Amino acid sequence: MISDPIALTAVHSTFRLERYYEAPPARVFHAFADDDAKQRWLVESEGFVTTEYSPDFKVGGNEVYRFRFGDGPEIVNQTSYLEIVSNERLIFCYQMAMAGVPMSVSLTTIEFIPQGSGTLLLHTEQGAYLDGRDDGTQREAGTRELHEALAREVER
Amino acid sequence: MISDPIALTAVHSTFRLERYYEAPPARVFHAFADDDAKQRWLVESEGFVTTEYSPDFKVGGNEVYRFRFGDGPEIVNQTSYLEIVSNERLIFCYQMAMAGVPMSVSLTTIEFIPQGSGTLLLHTEQGAYLDGRDDGTQREAGTRELHEALAREVER
Repeated sequence: MISDPIALTAVHSTFRLERYYEAPPARVFHAFADDDAKQRWLVESEGFVTTEYSPDFKVGGNEVYRFRFGDGPEIVNQTSYLEIVSNERLIFCYQMAMAGVPMSVSLTTIEFIPQGSGTLLLHTEQGAYLDGRDDGTQREAGTRELHEALAREVER
Repeated sequence: MISDPIALTAVHSTFRLERYYEAPPARVFHAFADDDAKQRWLVESEGFVTTEYSPDFKVGGNEVYRFRFGDGPEIVNQTSYLEIVSNERLIFCYQMAMAGVPMSVSLTTIEFIPQGSGTLLLHTEQGAYLDGRDDGTQREAGTRELHEALAREVER
């Protein structure tokens, strides 16, 4: 399957976020590994309508979420896990497309570091932004919001 | 499939290489897309013994090369293509492991820019290096060597 030529823009950038959670690594990791937990904090956000959620949490698995914001175009996230070390590290690659047009391809490393009674989560995201709109700034802001949603999940 | 815990090190780095080839974009792209051409310049290098070459050049495909240097441990490269725009752009994710231990996970964007009668190849590689040895420096040097091998392939 060869894509049709599109306007070519590839802006590469890396961001790294650190966030402390008042929950042990096993609980924070579980929020990524468990299909129901992940649906709560990662997939279902206010204002978004989920049209498909097909989790596939295993190395080589291919996970798909489809959603739209209000009446907006369909956005598709395809995630493939490259490394899973329980309670310690997760590496995955994900692609986003809007209305069938590729937006980005990203390589994400999440490290779960025990710290006192909680977890320091290190999130490193190396992305190629293809749509000429984002340069990683919006993605970083969106990821910070997801980290807040994760806090609500694991610190309940 | 959940990996066993391993010593955790993740060093992230990005390198970007530019290389001019005296060959049009279609010919340079072909060297990545054609299984036989790719085997000549990318897979078979002096001193290396290839034990498996299973090309799978399509979006979502999973390509595998296995090789060893002399009597060294087996090295495995698994590549998955994320975007293919003929003669223009290629985005893929690849993992390397040595003797079964993960070495790296990388997201590579290759852009083929027409320049005069030739092609300017832009290679951007965003990597997570896991083995505590490389920080991207060796990979960058190895990639420069591959770009020379590519020149021998497309400028013949």
